[in-house]
Amino acid sequence: MLDKVGTYEFIAEPFHCDFMGKMAPGHFCNALLNAADYHSNDRGFGIHYLKTIDRAWVLSRLCVEMNKMPLAYQHFNIDTWVESAMRHFTLRNFAIHSSDTVFAYGRSVWAMIDSVTRQPADLLSVNDGDIARYVESGRVCPIEQPSRVKMPTNSALATTIDTTYSDIDINGHVNSIKYIEHILNLWQPDWYAAHELKRIDIAYVAETHYGDKMSLYKADANDCFYVSAKRSRGNNVEETEVCRAKVVFK
Amino acid sequence: MLDKVGTYEFIAEPFHCDFMGKMAPGHFCNALLNAADYHSNDRGFGIHYLKTIDRAWVLSRLCVEMNKMPLAYQHFNIDTWVESAMRHFTLRNFAIHSSDTVFAYGRSVWAMIDSVTRQPADLLSVNDGDIARYVESGRVCPIEQPSRVKMPTNSALATTIDTTYSDIDINGHVNSIKYIEHILNLWQPDWYAAHELKRIDIAYVAETHYGDKMSLYKADANDCFYVSAKRSRGNNVEETEVCRAKVVFK
Repeated sequence: MLDKVGTYEFIAEPFHCDFMGKMAPGHFCNALLNAADYHSNDRGFGIHYLKTIDRAWVLSRLCVEMNKMPLAYQHFNIDTWVESAMRHFTLRNFAIHSSDTVFAYGRSVWAMIDSVTRQPADLLSVNDGDIARYVESGRVCPIEQPSRVKMPTNSALATTIDTTYSDIDINGHVNSIKYIEHILNLWQPDWYAAHELKRIDIAYVAETHYGDKMSLYKADANDCFYVSAKRSRGNNVEETEVCRAKVVFK
Repeated sequence: MLDKVGTYEFIAEPFHCDFMGKMAPGHFCNALLNAADYHSNDRGFGIHYLKTIDRAWVLSRLCVEMNKMPLAYQHFNIDTWVESAMRHFTLRNFAIHSSDTVFAYGRSVWAMIDSVTRQPADLLSVNDGDIARYVESGRVCPIEQPSRVKMPTNSALATTIDTTYSDIDINGHVNSIKYIEHILNLWQPDWYAAHELKRIDIAYVAETHYGDKMSLYKADANDCFYVSAKRSRGNNVEETEVCRAKVVFK
């Protein structure tokens, strides 16, 4: 049996860095999803095996709390482990570090669905509950659980964007990371030059498909920013919320 | 002395794949730029050393001719080498393959500039012309040179986009790969489901900065598509061409 904690090495690719030479937050979060994917595939409950039994993981919530963003060409390791596994949800944590630096911690909540019916599935029934053998409840992840993100009432439309070919990933809908990029694009480089990202919580609610328009509504309260993304289809003006994020800067 | 040809291994990350599970062209081209960067840094004429002498590489043209796009999780190698080095330009080639598959070939033209004056610099004077020792003129790259891309006269405005935080890279202007993504977003998933990308040539002419608007003009002629990207600033309606691309589908 493999270790409960998996460790994967990444590099802050130079062209994945922002104008200050820090790894762009979207690319950083993408590394977390890769680590989750490698860890679960290596242990027999990843999407490779799930595909054969019509099951799929769905990312429900993600939060990352930054201490320091890796700089261009820096190598870093992502430790990832399953903190707990219930019937319909599992909590997965991340610690991102090098030998002498703690860059960040992350937490995430994943649901399992039946990929044919799109209904919730029992993740403890996969491989006779194999995931439970990998639960690592002893290791501490010293940040708060990912928030459901409750929007303040004063939100206002910030922008509306068309979804494009490059937004859509292998799952056929807008990539989880692309939401983070679109949301963080609401701030300008001048802002980022003066304010480091401290924490982002994102709660995924529904899917956005190609051709949908996505409107981002922004609010602020108590030194935090809140963004709600809503999709609309064709000529239908009705909007469906697809995700909510809470963003805190230093 | 290192080999003239450098080989670097990459993986088609699952969330860098499009809705068909093929590596997205932008991410594929980004791997080429990484390989170029690693190769030149390893050999002493990369941006790490250049930064210390106020020099920088500028990508002037890039073309990629696809045989097959790597699928999610596929590993592939990029061989890259310098085909020739003149005073102001160098030609760098790419062969992208695994043990049993040739995925693509690429060619590129790079200029060197003085990073303070932004004027062309003599790349043969760097480290006493060290780059010349690495010229590999014997290896064949079996695709045509990258085109200057001449626009047909029938081009029409296809879209205008705002440049955002995530478009801007460590160089402070729109990332070379982001142009490719914006250009290829002019086609819809339905189109990609029926047409594989065969070749893209892109000629970079000027830089786009944060806050610029970018308008894409599209034309077709002789089974090829042509796209010209033009930037405009603030309330100034005058447009400056920043790049041109020729796109061929199978």
